Amino acid sequence: MKALTQTQSLKQDKKFMIRHTVIFKLKYLKHSVGERDFLNAAKKLAAIPGVQNFESLRQVSKKNKYDFGLSMEFADQKLYDDYSNHPDHVQFIREYWLPYVEDFLEIDYEPLK
Amino acid sequence: MKALTQTQSLKQDKKFMIRHTVIFKLKYLKHSVGERDFLNAAKKLAAIPGVQNFESLRQVSKKNKYDFGLSMEFADQKLYDDYSNHPDHVQFIREYWLPYVEDFLEIDYEPLK
Repeated sequence: MKALTQTQSLKQDKKFMIRHTVIFKLKYLKHSVGERDFLNAAKKLAAIPGVQNFESLRQVSKKNKYDFGLSMEFADQKLYDDYSNHPDHVQFIREYWLPYVEDFLEIDYEPLK
Repeated sequence: MKALTQTQSLKQDKKFMIRHTVIFKLKYLKHSVGERDFLNAAKKLAAIPGVQNFESLRQVSKKNKYDFGLSMEFADQKLYDDYSNHPDHVQFIREYWLPYVEDFLEIDYEPLK
């Protein structure tokens, strides 16, 4: 177990290859129970294998219409694809994202050489 | 000098308070000299006081129209405001951003409690 933990820790420190982010606006009222439940469900995406440096964020610029953000990193494209196809992600999309997200924008980054 | 370096290092590790990001598309052709000059000028924004964890990024999602991103963090709103008003930032906006950016979107984050 110790060796595994160390490997995971080293991975976290590695320069990211792909950072997947999404900014979004919910159909729920601000500070509603629905909003809280949605955000709690989103946080569980962090447990899907391959996800590094997961962050739940509040979007605070007044120059766009979005209220929240999620950010996560993957070591390579295969891990990103595996995440997208993972049953827990697919279930989150079906049960929370599709019915309760009003609008969103996906933004993915790679380091600029 | 050693104490200062240590303080700076601690600051870098601190949980960010405000992350300022912008995604953008240039008027320049891809891989042109103009593009390279613009990105080199943008990287110098990292030297403005208060800027932490500066990143130059390539935007790679096909679900939006932007090609590049910049990300930086500030410990508080005053440091963010000071950055915005700093002569080097103002000069960058005037000499590079206004003439050569075709379109952009600003996204600012705070940690979600």
